[in-house]
Amino acid sequence: MSIPDTTLVDDVTARLRDVPDFPKPGIIFKDITPVLADPRLFGRVITAMSAPFRGQHITKVVGIEARGFLLGAPIALALHAGFVPARKPGKLPYRSVVERYSLEYGADGLELHEDALQQGERVLIVDDVLATGGTAEASSRLVKKLGGDLVGYSFLINLDFLGGAKRLGPDKVTSLLTF
Amino acid sequence: MSIPDTTLVDDVTARLRDVPDFPKPGIIFKDITPVLADPRLFGRVITAMSAPFRGQHITKVVGIEARGFLLGAPIALALHAGFVPARKPGKLPYRSVVERYSLEYGADGLELHEDALQQGERVLIVDDVLATGGTAEASSRLVKKLGGDLVGYSFLINLDFLGGAKRLGPDKVTSLLTF
Repeated sequence: MSIPDTTLVDDVTARLRDVPDFPKPGIIFKDITPVLADPRLFGRVITAMSAPFRGQHITKVVGIEARGFLLGAPIALALHAGFVPARKPGKLPYRSVVERYSLEYGADGLELHEDALQQGERVLIVDDVLATGGTAEASSRLVKKLGGDLVGYSFLINLDFLGGAKRLGPDKVTSLLTF
Repeated sequence: MSIPDTTLVDDVTARLRDVPDFPKPGIIFKDITPVLADPRLFGRVITAMSAPFRGQHITKVVGIEARGFLLGAPIALALHAGFVPARKPGKLPYRSVVERYSLEYGADGLELHEDALQQGERVLIVDDVLATGGTAEASSRLVKKLGGDLVGYSFLINLDFLGGAKRLGPDKVTSLLTF
């Protein structure tokens, strides 16, 4: 029997650092580095973010560049799943598939290696923060393009007022903290 | 008593993918993604890369953006150490220190948050590949600038013919594979 880590939300909230006007004026950035710097807290976060997906037969965890790598790689190991990086265009060395997404100004893209998933693999997408959901949605399109079965998303923080969970499908989205 | 994982080098070598002419013509890139995609192999790699530093009282693992995040975060958790990201300029949200390093054409830089290390912390630097050692050496200068004590480096692959280990100090460098 697992004991829910009921104080974890408070402990993480206490360590997050609000950085005003990053990456641009008017945005308050949630800096997770103080959480990563605390080994016990980092470990508890990985355990909690993995927990909803234990027993769900996840075969691959897709981590979104770059902070999604920091959470996704340990979550993959915790779930005994393989890790797959979703990267910005031009960063993956082998043949890749790409999906574009729109930003406030202009557009960007994400790629997966074309052999990163086998047909029917059960996939969890991981990132640090869910904002508008553009990068997560692009990742889900990449998973579907390769024949993967998207089981869900695990975020450390859901900025719910930006509507990302609604866009991705609320039943698929888990997060440790919601603002 | 730990049992050395004597077949690991062969198993990783068999899974690495050589990608010719990436990121530029004439370079054969060692693609580690097939290793990460295999959960048992990924776990064995993390255990082996951590092993030389067990009992060495590492307090912080510095992972170099971006593939160093994939190995550094799980190694930090395995060693019960905090994780610190070394990032390209402009990516870290809080006040940072910077070190420049030269590339074949031009220069680039790496940053650490100015409060990422306390005086005297025992630091391990992690990356996937040691080539000429420019980014690793810049990381070591950042560690020293913040008062950290550099215990060593852990790489998955050492491209020894490029002279990186000589530049960093051979007694500080560990790697699973050497080419």
